[in-house]
Amino acid sequence: MPAFAKRMEYMAGSADIIRGLFGAMNDPETISFGGGAPASDALPVEQLREIANDVLTRGSRGVEALQYGPVQGVKQLRDIVAEKLLAPKGVPATADDILIVNGGLETMNLLCQVFINPGDVILCESPTFVHCVEIFEMFEAKCVGCKTDDFGIVPEDVEEKIRELHPKMVYVIPTFQNPTGKTLPADRRQKLAELGSKYDVIILEDDPYRDLRYSGEELKPIKSYDKTGHTVLANSFSKIFSPGSRLGYVYADHAIIDKLIDAKSATNSHTSMLPQILCAEFFVRGYFDEHLKKLCAVHKERRDAMMAALEKNMPEGTKWVFPDGGLFTWVELPGGIDTTELLKESAAYKVAYIAGAGFFVGNTGEGKNCMRISYGNVTPEKIEIGMKRLGDLIKSKL
Amino acid sequence: MPAFAKRMEYMAGSADIIRGLFGAMNDPETISFGGGAPASDALPVEQLREIANDVLTRGSRGVEALQYGPVQGVKQLRDIVAEKLLAPKGVPATADDILIVNGGLETMNLLCQVFINPGDVILCESPTFVHCVEIFEMFEAKCVGCKTDDFGIVPEDVEEKIRELHPKMVYVIPTFQNPTGKTLPADRRQKLAELGSKYDVIILEDDPYRDLRYSGEELKPIKSYDKTGHTVLANSFSKIFSPGSRLGYVYADHAIIDKLIDAKSATNSHTSMLPQILCAEFFVRGYFDEHLKKLCAVHKERRDAMMAALEKNMPEGTKWVFPDGGLFTWVELPGGIDTTELLKESAAYKVAYIAGAGFFVGNTGEGKNCMRISYGNVTPEKIEIGMKRLGDLIKSKL
Repeated sequence: MPAFAKRMEYMAGSADIIRGLFGAMNDPETISFGGGAPASDALPVEQLREIANDVLTRGSRGVEALQYGPVQGVKQLRDIVAEKLLAPKGVPATADDILIVNGGLETMNLLCQVFINPGDVILCESPTFVHCVEIFEMFEAKCVGCKTDDFGIVPEDVEEKIRELHPKMVYVIPTFQNPTGKTLPADRRQKLAELGSKYDVIILEDDPYRDLRYSGEELKPIKSYDKTGHTVLANSFSKIFSPGSRLGYVYADHAIIDKLIDAKSATNSHTSMLPQILCAEFFVRGYFDEHLKKLCAVHKERRDAMMAALEKNMPEGTKWVFPDGGLFTWVELPGGIDTTELLKESAAYKVAYIAGAGFFVGNTGEGKNCMRISYGNVTPEKIEIGMKRLGDLIKSKL
Repeated sequence: MPAFAKRMEYMAGSADIIRGLFGAMNDPETISFGGGAPASDALPVEQLREIANDVLTRGSRGVEALQYGPVQGVKQLRDIVAEKLLAPKGVPATADDILIVNGGLETMNLLCQVFINPGDVILCESPTFVHCVEIFEMFEAKCVGCKTDDFGIVPEDVEEKIRELHPKMVYVIPTFQNPTGKTLPADRRQKLAELGSKYDVIILEDDPYRDLRYSGEELKPIKSYDKTGHTVLANSFSKIFSPGSRLGYVYADHAIIDKLIDAKSATNSHTSMLPQILCAEFFVRGYFDEHLKKLCAVHKERRDAMMAALEKNMPEGTKWVFPDGGLFTWVELPGGIDTTELLKESAAYKVAYIAGAGFFVGNTGEGKNCMRISYGNVTPEKIEIGMKRLGDLIKSKL
């Protein structure tokens, strides 16, 4: 067989991690705090059935839904992104500068196509979303982690590393971060946008969780502070509409969007039409606001159940993040427990989580005593049972 | 703004061609033989409405359709590909070696991720499908055209170029080729598979039109002759189900599929779930066979109308391909007419086509007097009117 491309070697490590992290959680008796899915119970099945029934007729949008569509995405959906999702957050956008993509992650792929040469540096949070590291490494980027504290990435460290390493891009998940659940304060958001402008670096803001807020005050996106077009705003409909629909969008400076459209054309022509139309109609029919309220109520109950369960079941000395929204908390165990090792025994306790070490780039040894805990797709009842199991497992090691 | 990646420069030429070719065909009074869409009239709107209505309920597959799914694609759909689409063509496959992708073109992108280093050579037909050249050039491959005759690509020329240029891949559309409508005979198919094995080169067989056959005898895919795993079979549901659904599949040797799955994960996680489920149910409910008959009947009528209209309206000395299936014919004009120049005057005649030169890699000057004519999404009545207009336009230049 001909040799695989060099990039496949480069990404092999992170691809292994991804497969290890997300595979093998299929035992139905296991309560899994792995994954990253929102509540299945809250998916808008009934509304989409009604909409599909209406649009899939020849008199309505049946042909549009099944025939080839525009590379950039359905105009109606791009208008909705601009008017309903971006304008209220202080980001004035027009449909022309928005590209619809096949799930939020596709933006990272396309942006790498457009900007990343092999060897380019991308700065990330420490820890960061490992699936994106897999993407960056497929493009042979050198990922370097930046310091984080209780409030997320530390801008001073970002600036220092920009000066030292001349990165092409800084990748940040500012709100209810994956994997930690932390949220970056306004002053740091502004500072990051300014660093992008000052040093001519792309700030890639990945913000899929922001609308799932259960407490605290809403914060403007980094993009709202951007005066030079250096910030690129990636977002997704996965958490607020449906993950399986694979719908996301990117808003960027026109020159960047033009190139992203070329890359999209040369990746898969365009995003599937029926999901785009179903999503647009979901907004047009006024279902979104009510649905978002429901989503927040369902997930808030789970967040609260998780916080109570941590308090009740974790041994003394355990620390965890109180997330104001999103799907994750980050748990730091006492007593030198290695969560990767511990995972091997978790099957016997019928509980699963994701070990922390995999979320740090470059095998730094950080996060060995940490775990990402997702409460999004676990009912409060199962959170109580599952966290008792996890607590018992951890205590058995102390 | 930071510099774009080197690959964007490399692909700029073909991206320009793509935009020029497929854009600006939106005047509703113009009869367009551009595009590459199948008949809108024959899209299975009613069947999919019925299926959507059934599956989008909580008791059925509503949650599966909207929640995250497997990277490799819905198992049921992969089983259908193996049993209903590949086995009858002499290609014994299992679901494990099939990956569902977001439209047939995505396979070309993923296969480049897996195999292509900058500077690698990819051999193509002359002319070939320019959209794939755009993809290959995004990966900084050097595309080289191989000789074709009335039966398609000439294996002897492929072998010579393999020896000379050591390509990583040979890209071929064997059946009702895009843009020419030509079909490669069995002996050449076998020879190409053997060349892949002999010289350790990937034969990328792109076969989206094969099931739309209106005359002549069915031929086995190149993949059916492959004994070493060097042939990769890319196919699509666009022409036999729905283009806008963006559903395609790739069947390859297990070692290659494993890498393609990693690349898919790092491109967009997985293909949209609802279209996969709708498509699978379309087969399970037994709609496909009847639908394919209808598709062939509708498109055969158009092919025949196009052949008659060419006979009636083209000036003496014009040559064209009689396609046994698919959506295209390739027309070669007499009298040194430059079809790119002619296109500028076509708006006044309210007719459109795609100029031939863009389908040849590397600005060879070939195909200047040629055009790709698509009859797939034009009714027989409009074919008659449109070809009269095109004939008048051409004759005005002689």
